[in-house]
Amino acid sequence: MNERRRGKVVLVGGGPGSLDLLTLRALRELRRADVIVADRLGPTAHLDELDLDAEVIHVGKSPYHHPVPQHEINDILVREALAGRYVVRLKGGDPYLLGRGGEEFIHCHEHGVEVDVVPGVTSALSAPMAGGVPVTHRGTAAGLLVLSGHDDLALDALAAWPHTIVVLMGMGRLGELSSGLVEHGKAPSTPVAVVHRAWTPQQRVVTGDLTTILGKCADAGVGNPSVIVVGDVVTALPRSAVVDIAHTARTGESS
Amino acid sequence: MNERRRGKVVLVGGGPGSLDLLTLRALRELRRADVIVADRLGPTAHLDELDLDAEVIHVGKSPYHHPVPQHEINDILVREALAGRYVVRLKGGDPYLLGRGGEEFIHCHEHGVEVDVVPGVTSALSAPMAGGVPVTHRGTAAGLLVLSGHDDLALDALAAWPHTIVVLMGMGRLGELSSGLVEHGKAPSTPVAVVHRAWTPQQRVVTGDLTTILGKCADAGVGNPSVIVVGDVVTALPRSAVVDIAHTARTGESS
Repeated sequence: MNERRRGKVVLVGGGPGSLDLLTLRALRELRRADVIVADRLGPTAHLDELDLDAEVIHVGKSPYHHPVPQHEINDILVREALAGRYVVRLKGGDPYLLGRGGEEFIHCHEHGVEVDVVPGVTSALSAPMAGGVPVTHRGTAAGLLVLSGHDDLALDALAAWPHTIVVLMGMGRLGELSSGLVEHGKAPSTPVAVVHRAWTPQQRVVTGDLTTILGKCADAGVGNPSVIVVGDVVTALPRSAVVDIAHTARTGESS
Repeated sequence: MNERRRGKVVLVGGGPGSLDLLTLRALRELRRADVIVADRLGPTAHLDELDLDAEVIHVGKSPYHHPVPQHEINDILVREALAGRYVVRLKGGDPYLLGRGGEEFIHCHEHGVEVDVVPGVTSALSAPMAGGVPVTHRGTAAGLLVLSGHDDLALDALAAWPHTIVVLMGMGRLGELSSGLVEHGKAPSTPVAVVHRAWTPQQRVVTGDLTTILGKCADAGVGNPSVIVVGDVVTALPRSAVVDIAHTARTGESS
């Protein structure tokens, strides 16, 4: 009788969606995988281009649509690993920033499955960058606060924070966020940028301030998946430069 | 007469220091470079392994030691690009999170130099991960605040923030930070982790709480470069699992 091969789960940060923003380590894990359990966000749409041998299980997690509930994702990971397979759990962005990677880690660990984790390029930084916004900038913002639109917006704490605010998965609450920040004391003229599908050919950027951003996004038809950036960093870089970056992000070209 | 080749500057996020945490895009830019202007942090120490053709200019920037002042770095970037060279400005982590990338971007742009930017894996997320800490965790922390120890610690705003706090380049002010947070109302028992040289063979992790972390780091002889994480996420993952991750980070192995 052969000794049964021991499976493993690796939680891999896939970055914002462009294949070339995968890390070398993430690519190595994908090439090694027997099975890839993939979110809808991140580089999932481009896995074909990598010509991998792995089976891909789509769990289709996206901001307002969870076809496979988290507990079933957890069960899939453990089931596949206990069957002796090398399992890559491919997540958009970074596994530990609002990605529920910690829960998956604990579930695997508690079921005796070896589990490892690989960081990724988070959309909290890279989406603003693609829209021409540095999340910090000397003399403008010396720090960054990141939260999810799925959770308590903690408006008191947000209004007390003098630097940049980034909200992931927050388009459904953009009105509540922008009016709430003004009610809690932020200047109505505080600049806001919304970056939709950063680093993809579908990228769009809408800019305004706390009083105008909701209407501008509605006019532009920009919804999820988008990253919201609030703060003076939105206007820190010259406009012409912003256009250059947005072009590069869209085309993936660096000419 | 030949037409003079047009130079360019690309600000590239090099990640926390391990070569395999470079993105594919960062590697492509490094291979294309005529000259690499490199910080001390990030993957600079491993550039030899990539067998690149580029000249490397070390500007040696590190938290408390700037052999080349920022204005001279800016001048080097413009000078090299105007000489027709393809310049990669290799930075640790991500160029726009407390990395002064925005300043370099503007300086190049104002001098007529084409400039582009590539996001990287930030140590604000990946160093905690290497130390076994998810920066957010369901039911424990729904957001993240990042700031630099070089700037105003904004203790009022920090104490008002109910989720995770990450401080980069803050070891010189660890005492001020930990005692200040308690004075401003944080529970003294709030867990703290310090992750030194994450994702390198020299990685070390010290854990404690707001009252003990300063002494523990002094006892362990752990100083810069380290990332400080404050919040209940520090104890979110089981201890045995944390040891596994720290081992993986140190060795770069994924066995």
